[in-house]
Amino acid sequence: MKRAIELAKQAKGEIPVGAVIVKDGLVVAAACNRKEQNLDVTAHAEILAIREAEQKLGRWRLDDCDMYVTLEPCPMCAWAILNSRIKTVYFGSYDLNYGAFGSKIDLRSVANSKLQVYGGIMENECNEMLNSYFKNLRNVAR
Amino acid sequence: MKRAIELAKQAKGEIPVGAVIVKDGLVVAAACNRKEQNLDVTAHAEILAIREAEQKLGRWRLDDCDMYVTLEPCPMCAWAILNSRIKTVYFGSYDLNYGAFGSKIDLRSVANSKLQVYGGIMENECNEMLNSYFKNLRNVAR
Repeated sequence: MKRAIELAKQAKGEIPVGAVIVKDGLVVAAACNRKEQNLDVTAHAEILAIREAEQKLGRWRLDDCDMYVTLEPCPMCAWAILNSRIKTVYFGSYDLNYGAFGSKIDLRSVANSKLQVYGGIMENECNEMLNSYFKNLRNVAR
Repeated sequence: MKRAIELAKQAKGEIPVGAVIVKDGLVVAAACNRKEQNLDVTAHAEILAIREAEQKLGRWRLDDCDMYVTLEPCPMCAWAILNSRIKTVYFGSYDLNYGAFGSKIDLRSVANSKLQVYGGIMENECNEMLNSYFKNLRNVAR
């Protein structure tokens, strides 16, 4: 999760979110949110990390991998995670507005999936990073 | 929708789904499902079409575009469509298992969005294409 937080901080001009995919204790993919930079609404950290891991491993099935992500995944990312068969997801901040692993909705029930999800990992650090980003954004907008 | 059906038929070895994005009456992006070919669980027709349209138009906001897709979008694609601000979605077959614009869940309510969605467009043709694919798959599996 520390690595995911470092990545999130590299997401300049973006909502700071970082995601890391781990297999056998080693990082196989790591990404930050790049929606604005890539002009791509699908370029969330989780999607980019999944695509990178799949290309590296040469298969779309990631059932021997775990994901660490600083923010609870949105429905787009949650469904991609479910489709990829990732084993366990650890996330930092809860997203009460759009979180799709329990906070707003839980897509595991739609997929009838037993995916393990643990929220609130290093939550304070992840919350502070998001709060600081949105505080700066409000100051700029004034 | 005819063009989307043609594309879906080109998705060899994949669940046949095609998507087309239209702006001012012209096709700006068109794709078929390429999950197996690309080894990428995010390579659904809708995601590929959105990314292509965004790259061509040089912006992530597609609020002057409509999408035609042969199957009701899953939660991943539905959320990407909502995030892209696409104006109107026309889909063919309803997906009672995973459809995220009303059949299984409706993510518009999660996003508090007024996105217009019309289902059942050329539904028979789209259903027949899917039924034929799954029938062949069952025969091969025997």
